Parts: sequence; C-alpha cells; structure tokens
Amino acid sequence: MRMRKKKWAEPYLEEHRDLALADPQEYKGTWHEFLQCETLHVELGMGKGDYLIEMAHMYPEEGWVGVEKDRSAAATALRKAVEEEQADWHNKRMIPGNAEDLENWFAEGEIDVLHLNFSDPWPKKYTHKRRLSSERFLTMYRRLLSEKGIVQMKTDNKDLFEDSVLYFLQNGFTAVDFSVDYRRNEHPEDAITEYERRFLDLGQPIYRITVRPCRRETDMLE
Amino acid sequence: MRMRKKKWAEPYLEEHRDLALADPQEYKGTWHEFLQCETLHVELGMGKGDYLIEMAHMYPEEGWVGVEKDRSAAATALRKAVEEEQADWHNKRMIPGNAEDLENWFAEGEIDVLHLNFSDPWPKKYTHKRRLSSERFLTMYRRLLSEKGIVQMKTDNKDLFEDSVLYFLQNGFTAVDFSVDYRRNEHPEDAITEYERRFLDLGQPIYRITVRPCRRETDMLE
Repeated sequence: MRMRKKKWAEPYLEEHRDLALADPQEYKGTWHEFLQCETLHVELGMGKGDYLIEMAHMYPEEGWVGVEKDRSAAATALRKAVEEEQADWHNKRMIPGNAEDLENWFAEGEIDVLHLNFSDPWPKKYTHKRRLSSERFLTMYRRLLSEKGIVQMKTDNKDLFEDSVLYFLQNGFTAVDFSVDYRRNEHPEDAITEYERRFLDLGQPIYRITVRPCRRETDMLE
Repeated sequence: MRMRKKKWAEPYLEEHRDLALADPQEYKGTWHEFLQCETLHVELGMGKGDYLIEMAHMYPEEGWVGVEKDRSAAATALRKAVEEEQADWHNKRMIPGNAEDLENWFAEGEIDVLHLNFSDPWPKKYTHKRRLSSERFLTMYRRLLSEKGIVQMKTDNKDLFEDSVLYFLQNGFTAVDFSVDYRRNEHPEDAITEYERRFLDLGQPIYRITVRPCRRETDMLE
C-alpha cells in the first residue's frame, strides 16, 4: 500500500503530533493508563487507517494504536480520524514510524494484541527479512506481548501466508485460530475495510491465523 | 469415498490375502525388511488405491502400504494393482482394515511417512472424533512414527483442513511444510489422482500440511 508523497503530510503530522505521536517513546510502559484500557491493540502497517479507526469505534473500552511507516499514508489515516463526524481520540493513537522501532515505544509485556493486516508480502526472497512476520520481528513480538498476548494476521497473499505460518511455528508461537477463507463465515466482530472488500468482490479468500507464544509447561507433550 | 457394496469383493480379497493382507499383524515390526525399504509409507484411507499404486511405481525403493476400511474400495484398489500391465508387488501391500487398528499391525517407531489424502471430513460436530487427524489418532501416530517420521495431509475440504491444523499443533506436532494452494506450483514428486484432478478442474485449491512430532530439545524457545 505505498502512496505517492503528499506535500501536506508533514505539516499536518506536526500539527497533530499529540494524535499521530511524534514522541511515542514518552508513553512506553504506560499505554494502558494513557488509553484507559485493559486490552491494548497495536496494528503494524495500518495503511490509511480504516481498520484501526473502525475497530476503535467498535471496541471503545479497548486501546488502539496504529503504526505506519509511510508518512503520507499515516497522515491520510490521521486526517480521516480527525475529520470524522464524531472524532473520538479517547482510546486511540497513531504512530508515524517504523515497526522496527517498536521496542522504543512499548515495554516488555505491554501489548495484548498485535494486528498484521494485509502486510506488504515482500515477494522477492532477498526481501523476506522485511516481512512483518519474519523471524527478527517475531523475536521482538515475543518480548512485547503480555501473558495473554496474541498476534492476529490477515492476508490475501498465499505465499506470505504459507511462509508466515511456518515462521510462527518455527519461532516459538502456536496457533489458536486458523482459517483459509475467513470471510466465508460472518465475522461481525472484525472490521472489513474497503481494501479487504476488493479481494472479497474478486472472490479471493482471506487467510487468517491467530498465534500466541508457546508455553513450556503446557505446550509440550513428550 | 464410500462405495456401493461389491459382491465380488470378499472372494477376491480372500484369493489375494497375501497382497491385500488378511493378517497384517504378522508383519508387525518387520515391514522394512518385508518390503525391502528404508522408508516406509502408510496411506490411511487409500480409497481405490490410485495414489498408492502410482507412488509405489514412482518410488520403487520405498515401501508402500495402503489401508482402507471400505472392503469394496479395498477390493477395487487390489484389482487395479493386480491387473496392471506391469503389476509389481515387491514394495507394496494393502490392508483391508480400519485405521483404528494400526497399532496391531505396526510397531512403535516403524512408520516413516503417514499419508492422509482427501480423508472423510466428517462434517458434523459429533462425528469429528472419527476424523483421521483427530486427537486420538494423532496420539497413536506419535507412537508409530519413526524418528524422522512425518504426517502428510492433503485435502480440498476447508473445514477439515482448518480444524486439522489446530489438531496437529495442539497435540504435539509442528509443521514443516504448508500450502493453501498446493497445485498452483508444479509438484511432479507427488502423484495427482483422478479424484484430485476433479477439484483442480473446478479451480478449487488443494490444502496440504506436513507435520512432525515436536522435540523438546529443539522446538521450545522459552
């Protein structure tokens, strides 16, 4: 979801540096209090923010943070949320930044749900390490997830999904939910964005997996 | 793949009781010698035997045993193999029997590859325990698999596949290979049966997962 650069993006982000946070590290370790929530969701690669904004509406008692490294996309998401009819920032923030820096912004065990929605598949082999489900990210996620913490991944991309399932399983995660055609059943609990709707209209399946870190005590049978 | 009962089935099976084995327990613990192989494959639910017969041709140095509880289907598979132009039984046998009895026929650690191809999905919840990938079967497979042992499962059925992936992961297996559309790439190493071809002709994806039992030493990261 790369965008053309928007001239208005930088001043707009600067103007709303308390919503699309310019200094997210200031909240490290205090996100639950800051967003008054028991469950903290972080979406990596929120794109234009449709999922984040709708989910924050649907779950007003949970906290929602959207990360996006493309600053024009982040500014677009920000503006969408600012210009909403009933703009409501009590339980959400955005971070225009790179998911690689996640540990600068969040403390160990602080995140409850990590969302990866239609992430860039980085199809070429030498770019696989940039995938948000690749090993170095998973190692970081394990540190950042709370005890009840999970990662939810949705994608239309077969190669990314197949590889990611193996990444998860080979890096200390196990699946708690799994679908090869998530939308064939109704899931009103999970927002469908315009972006996702396009795949559905084409009859393409949406793949989805929910994983949690393995626990030595309960996950080994031998 | 349930069939109408065939009258000729029973006498035909009896006539070839050394090929579609009437007493498979006699080979328990000695299958590798009996079939002169280093790698022993067992297909559960071979149906009319097309996969087993073709794979036994493709891999003449490996051993192949097909299990089928529907005796008319087993007899059909048997006849197909007997009437082949170059019938060759040096590396294969059939067992007209129920996979539940697997431990009567095979010793602990004796099977190298278990194949589940297009198994009955048993869609109704109260029949799920009959699925060949359900918990009680997996517990048995773990005992029967050799150190290098794996289970390969292929299916066109979304519900069965989704559930089975979770069954495997929650019962001490981890994935070593995984596909949500196996035939979109060429896999000349794996026989395509007429039965499978029907799904491909309809444009339906074939789901596939290969799993192995978890090992405490290497599979836990915590």
